[in-house]
Parts: sequence; structure tokens; C-alpha cells
Amino acid sequence: MPVPPPVLHPPFNTVRLSHITYTVTDLATSRAFWVDTLGLQISAETDTALHLRAMEERNHHSIILQQGVEPRAGALAFKLYEDADLDRAADWFSAQGQGTTFTDDPLTGRTLHTTDPHGVPLDFYARMTRLPSIHQNYALYHGVKPLRIDHFNLFSPDVDGSIDFWTQMGFRTTEYTEDAETGKCWAAWMHRKGGVHDIAFTNGIGPRLHHTAFWVPTPLNIIDLLDLMSTTGYRDNIERGPGRHGISNAFFLYIRDPDGHRIEIYCSDYQTVDPDHEPIHWDLKDPSRQTLWGAPAPRSWFEEGTLFEGLAPREPALKAQPIVAP
Amino acid sequence: MPVPPPVLHPPFNTVRLSHITYTVTDLATSRAFWVDTLGLQISAETDTALHLRAMEERNHHSIILQQGVEPRAGALAFKLYEDADLDRAADWFSAQGQGTTFTDDPLTGRTLHTTDPHGVPLDFYARMTRLPSIHQNYALYHGVKPLRIDHFNLFSPDVDGSIDFWTQMGFRTTEYTEDAETGKCWAAWMHRKGGVHDIAFTNGIGPRLHHTAFWVPTPLNIIDLLDLMSTTGYRDNIERGPGRHGISNAFFLYIRDPDGHRIEIYCSDYQTVDPDHEPIHWDLKDPSRQTLWGAPAPRSWFEEGTLFEGLAPREPALKAQPIVAP
Amino acid sequence: MPVPPPVLHPPFNTVRLSHITYTVTDLATSRAFWVDTLGLQISAETDTALHLRAMEERNHHSIILQQGVEPRAGALAFKLYEDADLDRAADWFSAQGQGTTFTDDPLTGRTLHTTDPHGVPLDFYARMTRLPSIHQNYALYHGVKPLRIDHFNLFSPDVDGSIDFWTQMGFRTTEYTEDAETGKCWAAWMHRKGGVHDIAFTNGIGPRLHHTAFWVPTPLNIIDLLDLMSTTGYRDNIERGPGRHGISNAFFLYIRDPDGHRIEIYCSDYQTVDPDHEPIHWDLKDPSRQTLWGAPAPRSWFEEGTLFEGLAPREPALKAQPIVAP
Amino acid sequence: MPVPPPVLHPPFNTVRLSHITYTVTDLATSRAFWVDTLGLQISAETDTALHLRAMEERNHHSIILQQGVEPRAGALAFKLYEDADLDRAADWFSAQGQGTTFTDDPLTGRTLHTTDPHGVPLDFYARMTRLPSIHQNYALYHGVKPLRIDHFNLFSPDVDGSIDFWTQMGFRTTEYTEDAETGKCWAAWMHRKGGVHDIAFTNGIGPRLHHTAFWVPTPLNIIDLLDLMSTTGYRDNIERGPGRHGISNAFFLYIRDPDGHRIEIYCSDYQTVDPDHEPIHWDLKDPSRQTLWGAPAPRSWFEEGTLFEGLAPREPALKAQPIVAP
Repeated sequence: MPVPPPVLHPPFNTVRLSHITYTVTDLATSRAFWVDTLGLQISAETDTALHLRAMEERNHHSIILQQGVEPRAGALAFKLYEDADLDRAADWFSAQGQGTTFTDDPLTGRTLHTTDPHGVPLDFYARMTRLPSIHQNYALYHGVKPLRIDHFNLFSPDVDGSIDFWTQMGFRTTEYTEDAETGKCWAAWMHRKGGVHDIAFTNGIGPRLHHTAFWVPTPLNIIDLLDLMSTTGYRDNIERGPGRHGISNAFFLYIRDPDGHRIEIYCSDYQTVDPDHEPIHWDLKDPSRQTLWGAPAPRSWFEEGTLFEGLAPREPALKAQPIVAP
Repeated sequence: MPVPPPVLHPPFNTVRLSHITYTVTDLATSRAFWVDTLGLQISAETDTALHLRAMEERNHHSIILQQGVEPRAGALAFKLYEDADLDRAADWFSAQGQGTTFTDDPLTGRTLHTTDPHGVPLDFYARMTRLPSIHQNYALYHGVKPLRIDHFNLFSPDVDGSIDFWTQMGFRTTEYTEDAETGKCWAAWMHRKGGVHDIAFTNGIGPRLHHTAFWVPTPLNIIDLLDLMSTTGYRDNIERGPGRHGISNAFFLYIRDPDGHRIEIYCSDYQTVDPDHEPIHWDLKDPSRQTLWGAPAPRSWFEEGTLFEGLAPREPALKAQPIVAP
Repeated sequence: MPVPPPVLHPPFNTVRLSHITYTVTDLATSRAFWVDTLGLQISAETDTALHLRAMEERNHHSIILQQGVEPRAGALAFKLYEDADLDRAADWFSAQGQGTTFTDDPLTGRTLHTTDPHGVPLDFYARMTRLPSIHQNYALYHGVKPLRIDHFNLFSPDVDGSIDFWTQMGFRTTEYTEDAETGKCWAAWMHRKGGVHDIAFTNGIGPRLHHTAFWVPTPLNIIDLLDLMSTTGYRDNIERGPGRHGISNAFFLYIRDPDGHRIEIYCSDYQTVDPDHEPIHWDLKDPSRQTLWGAPAPRSWFEEGTLFEGLAPREPALKAQPIVAP
Repeated sequence: MPVPPPVLHPPFNTVRLSHITYTVTDLATSRAFWVDTLGLQISAETDTALHLRAMEERNHHSIILQQGVEPRAGALAFKLYEDADLDRAADWFSAQGQGTTFTDDPLTGRTLHTTDPHGVPLDFYARMTRLPSIHQNYALYHGVKPLRIDHFNLFSPDVDGSIDFWTQMGFRTTEYTEDAETGKCWAAWMHRKGGVHDIAFTNGIGPRLHHTAFWVPTPLNIIDLLDLMSTTGYRDNIERGPGRHGISNAFFLYIRDPDGHRIEIYCSDYQTVDPDHEPIHWDLKDPSRQTLWGAPAPRSWFEEGTLFEGLAPREPALKAQPIVAP
């Protein structure tokens, strides 16, 4: 099945992915990982929550760490182009049969809460509190030197269904993996902001969050993080990589935070702003899809993910399996 | 003078800068430079013209080298979102008093020809012939490993005027340099595609083309190009750099082709897709504006540029001068 | 067992490892790999042999590829300080009961042939034909941009015995792996030239050659090679990496040539010229020894190697096993 | 004049350059620069002195910062192979008419103090107090990530004389610059440890210390330091670079500490252990000698240096001048 064509005039204008809240079980432990090791900057800090941003971000935050009892992911938050898009979005989600509510948030103003058809919690806003630029405060750079949030990746129990819905929302598919036997999509990468993706879907028990990714300057920053994590007690938090994805052509590393939340460190994908940008097809059995250099991913990478708060995942209908490291 | 606010609903939707034609005086000499040394790929070749693209581009070309008698720049070409934007653009330019004509181009289809108020020749189209992806054909990568065209930079005799007009066209200013004495803008960087710029304007005898820039993977590719040019007869074609611009935070190198056309090699600027992205102000007398590390640019960099075909430049009204290397 | 102390006044002065001959089964296929892909330079070429050097080397060659019927390794060749060292070496090997012969080689002059006690074939010479410097001919750099041969690595059936003999020859141990249960050395890294090693020994069926290593400028050159090999039909020739060795702290990649000869691509170990440089101890069960970041090596890396011409390997006495990828 | 051939059997065995003492006028200010910004590690600290080492060094220190009233350089210190070399060195210097004294140093043991014929103060020792390895303590790496001291560079009033004396001491010339008109050497690079140099001499008012160099992993670390210095108040301490030297082929940056002591940050020269390694000749008028890419050095780089304690420099006899930035 080829993926559906992009919708050139979507019902509302999504600028980019914006932020996510992670529930963590020990905020101090998480702070040591996200701030001291990864190198994210603190925008706000209380006894129970940390708001973090990367070096290039002027939005108040892209990550919220919230003290809680179990590791969970909150809503995936997206920035819309203007306030009127919030109403257009609410109308459209309602028309799709998805419930919508609005709240007034001290940092993101009027904020729309809804879900996709699989129940993935979604937040939309148009303007977040802005902070002064720090991208040239080089004394603050440390860890992996994270520049910006890049994308969300989700396990979906029905990737074709996810692609259809998100295409209607205005997301464009840049690459996708097909199971040749069934003709079904096994995974897809979809964007708004002009890179390979703002969000991706992978076949699996879901909806669950697979990972959130941060963009870094060069592959050497990823090597620096590996050296640092290996020698500061975080060796077991390294899950996969470094390597180059066939898909997206990005240089990557997957790590797990102290609660198991998976983070991708990522650089060097490509520009996709052309409206006639053609999606790239990959076969599920092609090992270079996962890692251009041939090494398969470990089983945990295909099986483990973060539950969304209050959302029970289900088995996917598609049972095809990728190549997994033995 | 603060720069004008962005127009959130521009009269037509420009996706990005697209391509330019350079008139060169010896095509074989230019081919040795652009193809063999820089590493651009040939899409089409005749006795009198070369169509070139960078590794990540699927558009047929971003550079045309055209045999001629004097070094000149042709129209700056931009890609619009859809065919209907061509008509919207034609209407808008006509309303501004700018002449418009349409031609039918074998590679870009229906193409609009017009000018900005200073006479800069502009082309607009919506769909160019597409070529297969080569970004993972690593055996083709050589030279500086150019990934994509990034921006145009122009001398303008009236930067404030340029900013006003291009803002109305839908371009958003990301950074600008102000002359503190007069309150006039000395330079501005304006984008559509979500980076620091698709086009920039610098005060000077103009309109003339200052340079066209290509994006490369990392600073090490720029170092590789310097080593290569220095040992293959192109040492005198190195004009400025390497360095980091204060403005844009990019790592840069400026080189000149055999006809003196200036090319910037460029990496690591930042994402600007947020509609509320605040422009950064720089003072003309701040040396870190030019080069974060403090080294001023040579005089040639401020004075020399490429004439547009058939367009006589004029002196700028603003006489303020930046810091120049002695 | 701690390793024996270095011999400060060795019986003869070895400068560094120098070169090796590989028997290959199809010279044209090997040429495509070693020259076109890896980037070694041809010093001499006949129908049956290729002499190759890396970019920084002025010695005539560091690799000889010799057409033959089965993949084999020839003698490990070392450069001595001066001609008189050849006689000192011959005397010493004779005194150890090792046979010695001299030949007159057109490229290395008077050349001593002998073996170590396990039968490893060794050649010694003092002056090889020199070629003009090419390290600043940047147009010649391609592939992984190999700079110089760095070391040999051997399977030894008796690592403690190898360490003892090579220590007497004047090699100094920089790092070693001990099997805690038996107190025996499982591996050792030994040098003359001031880096981590000119030669290393690993417990296993031997003597066999494990690999020859080349030094490259930065980790990014290794990433470039991975991208190139993956997309030019050499994906299955990638065996292990990229990664950082705990031992030597080097960034590494292991690849196999078309005959299975293993090559390490290597950068960033450390300086060891101090005569009081202390060897570093590693435990066989420490996963960071192999890869600082924790990933174990594949089974092939521990089991496969190149036979030396005419030398039958034997089982090691030490049966301890490292951690192997499942 | 070609440089004299190396002495294959020098009168004593020098292993490498080792360390130097800088007199600084405000130790706290110097600490902020050398430790917090450059990234050297503190081995010992008192109210009046700091002992520093780089990440790869196990010797107790390579730099001593000593509180004083005027910026000065102390003796250039070298490590000898063994204790007996101290006596051999003392005998040899005495035979050359250079005064010698021994002291017993708490960190370097029996230490020989002498001078070269131009009065350059020299210290020799065989064993310094050793510290535990920290090269894999990646949490300690910051600033430019200095790995090890690489070389000293001196203004000499008589470069030919310096070359002759240091050649007799056992140093080998790897590259040299000749003034074509007089046939005199204008500069020379001489080594013991197998890189391009342990010490270099440049024609000028001297003896004065031109700089001490540190080796770093890659050019990107140098770019990081430039970004850091530029945004933490040290922009004016950047003197020259980044660039690639024609001589040594190294990627370099020259900076000045708060007292004006010049430091080179340096990576990627080449291996020179072969006793038959041929010195490379450069012409004084060749701009690629200084910077392969063509940019000349600023005047300060040719004129300013650090006085040795108690040693009055004199004018050089050779008046030839290199190309200097205007």
C-alpha cells in the first residue's frame, strides 16, 4: 500500500512538535541524568517538577519532568501557527469524533486537549512563554550539547490507521516501511517542520511512546555522550548505537533515562520542505533500513516503551517482524 | 529602527529559495571548480550549460552555469507552494507596480518573471522536474560534500527598503544589523524555509549578488575543502574564513569561483519555524557580529560582488562602515 | 600475574612495525577494496602484486597484496634503528634458539628472517626505499583517508609466553587483560614507537593474525567509511563497530577484506613514550575492556583469523572466555 | 644551507619535552583561564603556585603557574630515559662549556640545570612523581580537552646555531624554513618523541619563548574553545587561527593567557619515528608555509614573546622577514 498523498490545505496549521511531560519516580535522579549528563537547561524548578529546554530553544520548555509514582508519558504537545488554528483544530477533531477540551495554561495560554483515534493524548497551543536566547552562551553547553527537540516516535497498533489520520491533520510522510507480504505499513515518518519527522509510528503494542529525540550538532557529540555515560555509571542506559539509520539517514544513539524513558540523540537528517517531496519506501526485511551499516537493533528496542498516562495499549493486528539482534 | 513584524498571512506562499544561473566565461574551468572540487553533481550537461544539484536535492538543479562573455548573475529563483500561488504572486507584484511575465519552462513549468523594487530579477515556479534521491549514494560524495543550497545574499542600496518589501512578500527577519547613529538597518537575514535565511541583504553598491551558500554536514568538511583547494591551485580562491558568524551562529567559509562569483560554505545555523521567533539585533560596530571569534572580514568581502544581468547598481544612501581587516 | 617490567636496554633497537604481505585470491577484487574503497595509495603494481602505502608514510609500502591460491599472512616486518641492529637481532634470535637467515631485498636491503618461539614469521630491516611525501597532496585522499599502519594483532596460544619473549625483545606492555581465575594474561598490547601498541596478542587458536590496523584522522573518517562500504556492496564486510575500546581508548572499526583478512581502522589512542609508563590492568570479565560503551564483540571476532603461511596453529591452554555477543 | 644530519647516537637519551614554569601576575586570573577555560587539571595547588596536567598525562605536571611580579618563563624541562642519562647529559653540557648544577627536587628527583649556548635555561630529570590515569574519566574533560603537552617554540637570535647545538643533543629536524637569499635557516622544528617537534626555533629577538603547545583530539575541540573564549570575555586573547600549518600539517590555534603567554592548541601532525625520516624544506616567502590555506599571521605573532627569567634577548643577525598580515 503506498502512503496517502499529503493534504496540501490541512484543516489547521501545525508548526512543529513542541514538548512532552514525563512522569519520573525520583526527580533528583532524573535531574542528574537529564540536566547534568544530557545537558538540558533548567527553565523552572520546583520540588515536584522540572521544566527543561535545549540550547537553541526559546520556547520556555520542551521537556517537563514530573515527580510521580510510575513512569508515564503525558500528552504529545504541538505548536500551532496562530490562535485561530486552535479553534480550527478543535472543530476538526470534534468532526472526527474525538473529544476536545480547552484549558488556560500559565505558560502556553489557551490550550486544546484531545486525542487521536487510538487514544494518543494530544495538546495544541499557539504561543508559549518565550525565554532569552542562549544558543551563543557557550559556557552553558555540556553533555551531548542538545540543540532542540526533534521528534516523537510511537508504537502504534495500526500504523496504516495512524498514517491516514495524521495525513488528514496535515502531516506529510517522508519515509515508510512496508511489510511486503501484507502490503501494510510497518512504520512511517511524518513531518510538519521540514525535517524527516515531527512524529513517527512503528508497529507494536500501542499506543505507547517509543522515544523523544533531540538534535545535536555532530556525530562527535554523540561519541562524547557515550564516553561520558560509560564512565559515570550510565553504561547500562545505552541501548542501541551509535549508527546511521537507513531511514532518515540520521546518525543516532538510543539511551534510556533512569525510569526507562527512551531518548534518541540524533543529527544529520535532511530538508523536506518541498510540497512535492517524495516519500521513500523501505522493505521490512531490508537490514539497512534500521542501520545503514547492517547491525540489527536489540529486542528491547522493538518491545519496550513508555505507557501514556491512563491509556491501555493493545496488540497490533500486523504480526510481521523485523530483523532483531540475536 | 526595529524591523517590521512578520506578515502571518502573506499574499502568496513561498517555500524556499531554489536556484540561480551564473554566467561564466569558461565552462570547462568552471566545471573543474564546481563539480570536481566543490563536489556538486551534474544533472544535465551541454556545450554551453551545466545544471548542477547538491547531494540532498531532488529538484533537478540549484545551480545553472551558462557560458557567456562576462560574469553575471541571473534571476533569483524561488519555489512556491502550489500552482495557484503563481497567480497570487503575479497579482501581488503587479499591484506593487512591478512588471510580470510568464513563460513555460521545460524544467520548471509555468514560471513567473518579475523584479523587486530595486530591480533584482526574480523567478517563481511551483514544480521543477524531480530526480532520484542520491543522498545515500555515498560513493558520489566528494569535495566539500554539499548537501543543499541554503541562501542568497545581496548587496542592497537600501536595506530598510528591501526588508519592507520582502517582509510584505512573507519573509521573516531572523537577525539584523543596525547602524546606531542613523537607526537604519545595515543588513538583514530573512527566511521562509525555517532556517536563519533564504535571502539576506547587506548595505552596499547594489543590487548586486554577494554570494550563494551551500549547506555541508560539519565544520570538518569545510576544513577538507580548504586543504583540497590549497593544494590544487585554488589557494587564491579562498577569501575569508573559516570562522563562526556571530550572526546566524553558522560555521562558514567564503570562496570565489574562477569568475569571482562568491560562494559560502555553511553549516550549523538554527531552526526558526516558530511564527513568534524573535529577530536578533546586532550593532554595526560589534566585531562579533561578523565573526564571533573577532577576526574582521577583508575589504574585498565588503566591496566585491556579482552584477545582475542588465541591472546597473547604485550607491547606497547609508554611508556607515563596518570594521574591516586592515 | 603482573606483566614483566620493560627491558630498558634491549638487545637490539626496533623502531616500529613496518609492513606485511597478504596473499589474496583475486588481486583485482582486492585492489577495489584496499585502493578504491579504503584509500591506500599504490607504490608499485604488477600482474601479481600490489605495494601499498598510507598517506603519511614515506617508506615504500606498508602492505603487499600478493596473488595466490589461499588467503594467508606473510612475515610481520619491523624496522630497526640502524644496520648494526640487524646483526644484534640475528645474534639474539640465534641465542634464543630461533633460526635466522639473511636475504638481500631490492626494497629493504639486508633483511633478517626469523620467528618467535610460537613460530610467528618475522622480518627485520633497517632502511626501506623511500618515496616522496604525499601527506599534503589532499586530492589523493579518499576512502577512510588512512594515514599510517598502526599495529599487528595476533591470536596467541600462550599469551604469557608471547609477552615474555617480546618483552625481552624490547617491547613495552601498555595494557593487558588478566583472567582472574588463573592469573594468566588473556591479552596484551605492546609497543616500541610510543603509542599503545605495535603488536598485540589475544588468547586463541594460534599463532594466527587477528588484524592489521591503520590510523585515520578522526572518528568521522570511520563514519564516512561505514557509509561508503554500506552503499557500495561491502556491508557484509563490516564486522564490528564503530565503538571505543576500553583498552587503548581508541575509536575503532573492524572490517574484513574480500579474503576475510581483518583490518582495524583506528584513531585517538595515547602517547606512551615515557619509560616509566605504567601498564593498565583489565579484567577479562569487564565488558568495558572490549567496548567502553558496553557492547560485546561478535563471536567471529574472537574466533576467525588469518593463517600464517606454512604455520599450523594450535589450541590455547587458557580456556577462559570473554563476553561475546549472543 | 641544508640542516645537519641527525646524530644517531646522541650523548644522552632525551625522551621528550616535559614541563615549564610560567610566572603569572595574578594566580586566580590565570587559574580561571588555564583550568576553567582551557581545561587543564590541577595536580597541586597552593596560594602561590598551581601544578597542572593534561588529560592523558601521568607525570605529575606539565605546567607550573607561579605567582610573581612580571610574566616570565622558567626553564624548559625535558625527561631523560634513565638516571644515568643525567650524568651523561651533565658531562656533555660541561664539555660544551655550559655550566651545570644538580638539585634534588621533591617531584622530579635528581635534576640537572644548565643552558644552551644562547642562554636558554634547561632542566633535565629522569623520573617525575606519577599520578593515576584520568584519560578515561570523561566527566573531567572540558574546555579544549587538552590531552598532552606537545612542544615548545622559541625565538632564537641565531637559528642555525640553535639547530647545530640541538642536533648534537640528539634532536632531529623534521621541517625547516630557509631564507633563499642568505641560505640561512629562518626556523626549524626538531623532535625526540616521534612527532613533528618537541622544540622549534624561529628567527627573532631572542632567546624568548614563543609558545607552548597542547595536543587536542580533533579540530572540533579547537572550534569549541573559540566559541567558549569568544563568549566568556576572552575574545581578545585569540591571536591567530584556526588554520592548518603548511609546516607540520597541523590544525592550530594561538591564544594568549592573561599575562600574554602564548599557547598553541594543536592537533593532527604526523609520525616521525623513522631514523631516516627526511626533513622538509620550506622557503621563507612561501605563504603556505605559515598557513596552508594562505592567510598570513598577524604582526604580534612574529614580534611578541615571553622573556626567560633573568635572560636578556638580543637582535637576530638574520634580518629577512616573512609575509605578515597587513
